[in-house]
Amino acid sequence: MRDPLPPGLLRRLAACLGGDALLTDPAERLAYGFDNSRRQAMPDAVALPTADAQVLELVRACRAHRVPIVARGRGTNTTGATVPVAGGVVVSFERMDRIRAIRPDDRLALVEPGVLNADLQVAAGAHGFFWPPDPTSAPYCSVGGNLACNAGGPRAVKYGAARDNVLGLRAVTGAGELVRCGAPTTKGATGYDFTRFIVGSEGTLALVVEATLRLVPKPAATRSLRALYTDVAAAAAAVARLMAQPVAPSMLEFMDGDCVRLAREVGGADIPEAGALLMIEADGDADTIAHAVAALSRAATGPGLLALDVAPDAAAREALWSARRKLSPALRTLAPGKINEDVVVPVSRIPALVDGVRALSAEFALPVLAFGHAGNGNLHVNILYHPEDAAESQRAIACMHRVFDLVIALDGILSGEHGIGLVKRDFLPRAIDPATLALMRAVKATFDPDGILNPGKVLPAAD
Amino acid sequence: MRDPLPPGLLRRLAACLGGDALLTDPAERLAYGFDNSRRQAMPDAVALPTADAQVLELVRACRAHRVPIVARGRGTNTTGATVPVAGGVVVSFERMDRIRAIRPDDRLALVEPGVLNADLQVAAGAHGFFWPPDPTSAPYCSVGGNLACNAGGPRAVKYGAARDNVLGLRAVTGAGELVRCGAPTTKGATGYDFTRFIVGSEGTLALVVEATLRLVPKPAATRSLRALYTDVAAAAAAVARLMAQPVAPSMLEFMDGDCVRLAREVGGADIPEAGALLMIEADGDADTIAHAVAALSRAATGPGLLALDVAPDAAAREALWSARRKLSPALRTLAPGKINEDVVVPVSRIPALVDGVRALSAEFALPVLAFGHAGNGNLHVNILYHPEDAAESQRAIACMHRVFDLVIALDGILSGEHGIGLVKRDFLPRAIDPATLALMRAVKATFDPDGILNPGKVLPAAD
Repeated sequence: MRDPLPPGLLRRLAACLGGDALLTDPAERLAYGFDNSRRQAMPDAVALPTADAQVLELVRACRAHRVPIVARGRGTNTTGATVPVAGGVVVSFERMDRIRAIRPDDRLALVEPGVLNADLQVAAGAHGFFWPPDPTSAPYCSVGGNLACNAGGPRAVKYGAARDNVLGLRAVTGAGELVRCGAPTTKGATGYDFTRFIVGSEGTLALVVEATLRLVPKPAATRSLRALYTDVAAAAAAVARLMAQPVAPSMLEFMDGDCVRLAREVGGADIPEAGALLMIEADGDADTIAHAVAALSRAATGPGLLALDVAPDAAAREALWSARRKLSPALRTLAPGKINEDVVVPVSRIPALVDGVRALSAEFALPVLAFGHAGNGNLHVNILYHPEDAAESQRAIACMHRVFDLVIALDGILSGEHGIGLVKRDFLPRAIDPATLALMRAVKATFDPDGILNPGKVLPAAD
Repeated sequence: MRDPLPPGLLRRLAACLGGDALLTDPAERLAYGFDNSRRQAMPDAVALPTADAQVLELVRACRAHRVPIVARGRGTNTTGATVPVAGGVVVSFERMDRIRAIRPDDRLALVEPGVLNADLQVAAGAHGFFWPPDPTSAPYCSVGGNLACNAGGPRAVKYGAARDNVLGLRAVTGAGELVRCGAPTTKGATGYDFTRFIVGSEGTLALVVEATLRLVPKPAATRSLRALYTDVAAAAAAVARLMAQPVAPSMLEFMDGDCVRLAREVGGADIPEAGALLMIEADGDADTIAHAVAALSRAATGPGLLALDVAPDAAAREALWSARRKLSPALRTLAPGKINEDVVVPVSRIPALVDGVRALSAEFALPVLAFGHAGNGNLHVNILYHPEDAAESQRAIACMHRVFDLVIALDGILSGEHGIGLVKRDFLPRAIDPATLALMRAVKATFDPDGILNPGKVLPAAD
């Protein structure tokens, strides 16, 4: 049983935040204790700051009492990164949701961390721009959360992930210092780059209170292609060809043969049988989109291509994408339990990854399906099982361990866009050597000397 | 007078490096004591390692004796970053110049730090790729040096600078630990991103012994445009329009009115008179290049446009670029001394920067010209003076201080691609607040506990 928060700290927090911005009632706190990982823990209090100065004072107050702080966007992450496993104060940025400026001439947006991704897209879109990260949760996830886990999405293949689209940050370190890093410019060689270093650190180094985001001009037109292949190797060769020519696809999604079969079964009868499928998107303007489609079609064509369809209009586009969209819900028809790991391998190793996953599926007698962002080699490996079956659950976990071993043997990494959080934390030493991990711990200690920021996340406990 | 290196250290270095890879003769050492900043200092020894293990042993040996280490590419940097002001051992990577692999399917190159930028371009070009950083010194600068100062060049406007085009590093910290960061993949959310953090740190955190570089498919065609404007404000508005539409220019170079006049005087009589000039480059393929030129022409057109020329062929392209090329040598005709500062401001502040520079030129009675990479707001401000004239030299330095003040007032930063090194070090506290600077010092100390890596660079001495 943890000690409750010291009364002195609660008084200081209440004074700094104001009446309704400090939640202490268990029923209210409960809602801030879980995320999309389905893990849960009870925070001792929840703070809802509205200003930088409150965040600064809050961190200093918690530090004085050595009380943990867990920054929270909207809890859409899948890794437990926002679950307050050590108790303490959850800082929800839901009230710091202002878009402070959209500056079209400088191609940037100045936002508070609680802005929803989708709200930013609407505001930027009014000026003809977008912010590239487009996770599936975009309608209800926050920019601060996107930065915390270096969120990507299908568009990252052309436009990069969160780290590639941030110019500057204001953030409060675990030492209770407000740091200002980066600049409202797209170039810089002025000391150490804390901006991109803080991105992806999952709230373990600093709490972001303002972000300067790089905006990208919106293309006028998009066009979708669907390519079916005899097998994964043929599709992977096409991915390499697509990525080796100058017309970058704006999306390049992969489904293995089991995914194609499943999509057919759940209502995609119009989808031909195939050993692998690529969904390819081109963007451009009215003058160039046809050329982009032609260039991508040429690159998609090669040994093992079964069919290549280009959607001439929006309705046809929707139909082509339907297989991809039906996939996630369809997985639940196979088994109610799902371990979804967003591993990354070099593009050339995609066939070896899918072959290896196929072998693990047989070995552990569980459905294991792979689909995802092929252009980045970022595949979501889904292990399906029945959670009420203890033996099957154990096999699923054992299978997941072997997927990680496989990925590391293929020179890949444990996560492309979901992050490490709680659930992959103990696997980090398989992927990162002791010297590098020790340096991560040392740098963490300089940002957060008392270890109050999101304890128990990202870095495994030291030996 | 510094103490010479301890004999025990020299023996250890000789044993680890082998006979001809440790230079101690003053005549030989001299050549490794200066860079393009025209500053100079004598190293106590020069090491020419050929293997990672030698670099590791060398750092450990130097650390044991608290002897400084200065990593050196080819000394083309302009900031004194490779001048061994505290003596010690210069580590020149000139013999670690192997391209270990070009992997087209994974769009990456695996290189040692001493590879020349131009040699990498040739090797990657054979596979249809290029590495984006294209500093003027590309024929004779090293990739390691490019990474050290986050080198850019004109292409950065579309393809990013060094930091944006590196996937992973192996590096030896000042603690004598070999760390391996990043991955041969274009996406990652796996712990802290040391890869991009080490880029731009100018050898103060770690010595890079291997880099995994992101390659980009080479466009088949390029086309150049030259746009002349009545004044800087009109040109800056065109820059904003060019950057706000989806066809990214592959170069977007700016010259102020004084630069245009100077280029005309030194033989560019074909250049019309103008208050500002933009050189714009489009890239694409045979199908799309005309559309790209049309899109960029539309964006370049607006109030204040005097003339817009498109080069139909390579000869015409050369003629259009001649003004830009003649500029740097022409500066020497105005005065032999030049302070060239590659400052960056938000694109919308370019007119304010150029107006401010114009006012400083009048106030200090010195020619001050601005030109450079407009799409990134990265202008090279050149203060011209006669070094033999003491009063003029003092005014030039005073003027440079005021340029920095102006840039910071415009929300800009001190360097876009040259770095800080020695020459801008003491200006860093004007641009970076004390808390952020203190954090930089603390992180430096975790990478390099004894402060042996490139002492005296980037970070100013603590109070």
